Amino acid sequence: MHSLPSHAMRPLCLNPSLCSSRFPFFSFSIPIFHKFKNNPTIYKKSQKGPPFFSIRCCGSGSVTAKPSWELRRNRAAVQEPDEKVDALRQLFTKPGIGIDAYIIPSQDAHQSEFIAECYMRRAYISGFTGSAGTAIVTKDKAALWTDGRYFLQAEKQLNTSWKLMRAGNFGVPQASEWLNDVLAPGGRVGIDPFLFSYDAAEELKEVISKKNLELVYLYDLNLVDEIWKESRPKPPNKPIRVHDLKYAGIDVVSKLSSLRAELVAAGSSAIVISMLDEVAWLLNLVDAAKLFVDDSKVTSEVMYHLKKAGVDLRPYDSILSEIRRLAAEGAHLWLDTSSVNAAIVETYKAACDKYLMNRGSRGKRKNKQYFESDSLPVGPSGVYMQSPVSLAKALKNPSELEGMQNSHLRDAAALAQFWCWLEEEIHKNVKLTEVDLADKLLEFRSKQDGFLDTSFDTISGSGANGAIIHYTPEAESCSVVDPNKLFLLDSGAQYVDGTTDITRTVHFGEPTAREKECFTRVLKGHIALDEAVFPENTPGFVLDAFARSALWKIGLDYRHGTGHGVGAALNVHEGPQSISFRYGNMTPLQKGMIVSNEPGYYEDHAFGIRIENLLCVQEINTPNRYGGIEYLGFEKLTFFPIQTKLVDLSLLSIEEMQWLNSYHSQVWEKVSPLLEGSARQWLWKNTRPIAKQ
Amino acid sequence: MHSLPSHAMRPLCLNPSLCSSRFPFFSFSIPIFHKFKNNPTIYKKSQKGPPFFSIRCCGSGSVTAKPSWELRRNRAAVQEPDEKVDALRQLFTKPGIGIDAYIIPSQDAHQSEFIAECYMRRAYISGFTGSAGTAIVTKDKAALWTDGRYFLQAEKQLNTSWKLMRAGNFGVPQASEWLNDVLAPGGRVGIDPFLFSYDAAEELKEVISKKNLELVYLYDLNLVDEIWKESRPKPPNKPIRVHDLKYAGIDVVSKLSSLRAELVAAGSSAIVISMLDEVAWLLNLVDAAKLFVDDSKVTSEVMYHLKKAGVDLRPYDSILSEIRRLAAEGAHLWLDTSSVNAAIVETYKAACDKYLMNRGSRGKRKNKQYFESDSLPVGPSGVYMQSPVSLAKALKNPSELEGMQNSHLRDAAALAQFWCWLEEEIHKNVKLTEVDLADKLLEFRSKQDGFLDTSFDTISGSGANGAIIHYTPEAESCSVVDPNKLFLLDSGAQYVDGTTDITRTVHFGEPTAREKECFTRVLKGHIALDEAVFPENTPGFVLDAFARSALWKIGLDYRHGTGHGVGAALNVHEGPQSISFRYGNMTPLQKGMIVSNEPGYYEDHAFGIRIENLLCVQEINTPNRYGGIEYLGFEKLTFFPIQTKLVDLSLLSIEEMQWLNSYHSQVWEKVSPLLEGSARQWLWKNTRPIAKQ
Repeated sequence: MHSLPSHAMRPLCLNPSLCSSRFPFFSFSIPIFHKFKNNPTIYKKSQKGPPFFSIRCCGSGSVTAKPSWELRRNRAAVQEPDEKVDALRQLFTKPGIGIDAYIIPSQDAHQSEFIAECYMRRAYISGFTGSAGTAIVTKDKAALWTDGRYFLQAEKQLNTSWKLMRAGNFGVPQASEWLNDVLAPGGRVGIDPFLFSYDAAEELKEVISKKNLELVYLYDLNLVDEIWKESRPKPPNKPIRVHDLKYAGIDVVSKLSSLRAELVAAGSSAIVISMLDEVAWLLNLVDAAKLFVDDSKVTSEVMYHLKKAGVDLRPYDSILSEIRRLAAEGAHLWLDTSSVNAAIVETYKAACDKYLMNRGSRGKRKNKQYFESDSLPVGPSGVYMQSPVSLAKALKNPSELEGMQNSHLRDAAALAQFWCWLEEEIHKNVKLTEVDLADKLLEFRSKQDGFLDTSFDTISGSGANGAIIHYTPEAESCSVVDPNKLFLLDSGAQYVDGTTDITRTVHFGEPTAREKECFTRVLKGHIALDEAVFPENTPGFVLDAFARSALWKIGLDYRHGTGHGVGAALNVHEGPQSISFRYGNMTPLQKGMIVSNEPGYYEDHAFGIRIENLLCVQEINTPNRYGGIEYLGFEKLTFFPIQTKLVDLSLLSIEEMQWLNSYHSQVWEKVSPLLEGSARQWLWKNTRPIAKQ
Repeated sequence: MHSLPSHAMRPLCLNPSLCSSRFPFFSFSIPIFHKFKNNPTIYKKSQKGPPFFSIRCCGSGSVTAKPSWELRRNRAAVQEPDEKVDALRQLFTKPGIGIDAYIIPSQDAHQSEFIAECYMRRAYISGFTGSAGTAIVTKDKAALWTDGRYFLQAEKQLNTSWKLMRAGNFGVPQASEWLNDVLAPGGRVGIDPFLFSYDAAEELKEVISKKNLELVYLYDLNLVDEIWKESRPKPPNKPIRVHDLKYAGIDVVSKLSSLRAELVAAGSSAIVISMLDEVAWLLNLVDAAKLFVDDSKVTSEVMYHLKKAGVDLRPYDSILSEIRRLAAEGAHLWLDTSSVNAAIVETYKAACDKYLMNRGSRGKRKNKQYFESDSLPVGPSGVYMQSPVSLAKALKNPSELEGMQNSHLRDAAALAQFWCWLEEEIHKNVKLTEVDLADKLLEFRSKQDGFLDTSFDTISGSGANGAIIHYTPEAESCSVVDPNKLFLLDSGAQYVDGTTDITRTVHFGEPTAREKECFTRVLKGHIALDEAVFPENTPGFVLDAFARSALWKIGLDYRHGTGHGVGAALNVHEGPQSISFRYGNMTPLQKGMIVSNEPGYYEDHAFGIRIENLLCVQEINTPNRYGGIEYLGFEKLTFFPIQTKLVDLSLLSIEEMQWLNSYHSQVWEKVSPLLEGSARQWLWKNTRPIAKQ
């Protein structure tokens, strides 16, 4: 899957079912742990619908994954967008609200990337279903911001009552600036503080304060939920599953012990971990999210696993009162304000203030204190830093790496079966839609050992659809795959032992010279990054230009990053590393990190090209070690043919041609043992070396 | 000349004579201009000694430039370093001083890079003559910080009373942290506030305040000057010269008018321009520095030139009272606190505070105010931003570019004569020292039309000396050039129409396989950067990795940036752009900027390699323009052979070999018309194409 612009790059949630919002906040303290489960008044047992995408479900051997369009069809609006917006506006003047504008972000309470349908409030209110976007409704305007990946999709999906704000284009104001423009001074801007990270809320508050606008936290209700009512989908409710230690590599007790050491070193006595993949990694759980939905959903195996690790359960909706209790106990709470939501951080700060006021008036506190030594302040105080779990999770241990390697080979076998089948069908002139292909691919993958689900919605785009970077075909509207156009397929799967993400672009007939030139330059960039060697402590952005250089030479480029982190049997997008043309992320690439290598080129209304492998950062045994440091490079995880028909050999150097031949030779060696029959023949045919004339 | 680490990268002063400190602060106000000349009590007419390096002197047709070792020999200490340090310490307890430590930085009052000898206080007190370093003397300790370029040199030059602090090495504290370690709380740290930029002083103040140390501004005297006394060299006193409009391209009135427009746009009514090259560029002057030393030194031509542009003269030492007057008038003073010294900024801030206090007490002000509109605050207030002159100066106009191109060809002709002569001498087994070579090169250059001086001390290093990145040979200690070792020559010149800076590395005998491999990888990096094409708005650091990639592959690297800005008939180092592995400089490379391309490799105690050309950023006529923007690349300014004997052809791609052959063909075409006889034959021989076997 192509990498997000890095402003959106952060540890992300595994899948919709893992992201059933408002749970779990994992509060880790010394010596007491706190966890919070879902609000029982909101998150009742689901009778139907989601989670179709639930992965790593325990128990059942059958696969429940269903193609994305089914989910999306359910999502189609019954109400007209105008009516929804009007209904929303009527709430503005209700007692206890009194606002002039309301912001509806994409996020859930955990800053997840992929979110469960019941938390897709921005999609519900606006009709725009892309993964990134912010909607703002004022008393007389409605506007939606999204980025370059989604301009085409948003144009199609927004009705005329919405104004599309093409973020990043010249002259388009940021949402906060726009509020300053359209509201009168003194106006009140409402948000649900659970849906904004503390940092994002603070930034917004500062910008709008220049125009004397006030940011209003509506803790008690979400206005979109109020109008969504009965038609709102229920949260996913699949039971959670323990992630086998043979894949996880390190047990929970050890992970918690390392984390405790970090807390002590940072002068902190407790931490809130709100990112769902961090919770899952730390506790070797999957679908840890649902751990707190309902006690009855926690199997005895999970209960035993948690008990062994010293983990307690708490009701999800008690998060704010737990925070207050921690402050009252004088805890030095570690909060990653870039991901922990504003409701939690503000509650903690207010509780700290209250503690200090009380202390001042009473002269002497009665509450228990964690530390009274010189090294820590007396009384509660926040430790505001990046979550320590983020980096620990990114550095894969040998068990995790082995699982990633093995699952990639099984995934490649499924892909070979799929492409072999597809070429035969095309040859027989069978008409197949983009969704047919995504479904068939899922079918092949689901037969592989350890398969759980797709790792994201399959991007299957023929011709011009390939140029829509985050295109997801819908059954009722998608195209028939055209044998005379480029076809782009970006897909991935979750296996018990690993996560895959691969893009290939092919042509079933005769590509044009233009298509070949663009494909070859994307390939040159892919090879340049794959072969890069660099000193330790190099941030990913330093390598980004390697992947673009061959395109730049003829005035081409692509509007997304080149690589994102990938979790081991976890989120398909994870931080903290990235390889991007946005230069803010100073995290060095480190041994054991996994990144995607996915340069592309997109010609609007014509075609899209992307070539994506996953890579693992490893030490390179260079003949020198200038500076006495290590030099790093990449080891490929993905082994699958790149279509040589699309290569313009005159543009490849000898060395690049050798790279391609060597790669194909490895593909054959590693994947052919898993294949037989026509798929094995297909792999043979597609891994033959090429040569300059 | 190799690029500095970017933390030292800033608009820099042209040469020592231009940098005679404490002048000129160019204060630009609406509608009045203020300028300040040198302190007559300090800067008396020099009888002898410097400025040997004075360039662009008016009048005399003869060249006064002398080799660097003569200057350096004068600089050799008569007094022992211990005695100086002791004398300094005795001043600590004098009335009105009362300090526990004194910091002696490298800078003059204008944050110049190359400074006049009389301002080389750090070199005087410590004995260490490298260009970068900070000395601190406490009551019982003396320590000197310098960076990796100078570790070897500092080891040689510091006596045992000094501790060498290898900045950047693991475990070495920063100077401010060291002060916190060695001084008792409550200690007083003295500085000369004219020698620190305001930003640097503020940062220092903040760090040492943690240990309750106080930063003390000693406005009235410099403690090193107090002990230097009679032996202190006199400031350079050559008259200034007008820079011909045919080379400058834009007249002073137009430049001042553009600057005024920027002031108005920024809400500022006056600006202090303290960087000497900015003053020179703005006023089309050279050695503008001395303009304010003594009225009698201003020729009638200069007086006429300034008068025509509406520029007044003021006494140099009245700078602080002028600043106070501007504040009293309510001026909104534009101060670039990264370069304007702390004395000026603090004086302005204090004057603003005083103004506001007076206003408060009197109810109504009597002073003239520049602006009373809504858009600007009533009363004086600082506008703290980067100087607008810096970027304007960096974007060369067509006249400046033409001058740069022409001067580079003449410079290449002189270099061909030099190398031809050198190879003949080596062939005859003549023993020549590194300094002999630098002197001979100067002789050839000085015969070229429009030659003024070297643009920096020539770096002439044989064998192991080539590995000392900022090596400057001294007559009494330098090596004889060894025909069996690599020889690195980094040099440049100032001409009336342009500034050059070129490095070549050669072998007179048979290079080893190791030397060839390293040379070839440096060349591959040089070619990769030279050929880079990139979208507009790309900061220079994005391209830095292109120049290192071939070295990284075998675990090699170099510890300096890849490119620095170069002025047109101005400083050989200028900002704001750079191409560096330090990623903080977000200035995009823009059409008309000049940068050096100088990757290298240095094997300690063995050899040094660097290949340096100057490049001008230009638009590339790409067949596409993705994003509707321009794509940029480089046009070479330097045309001089690269020794093909050192190239390991098996490591060059076909494309790289073609680059080298095409370059040499252009060198012959452009430079041969300026040569005759044996030098022309030498150029022919050294521009022949190479081919793979």
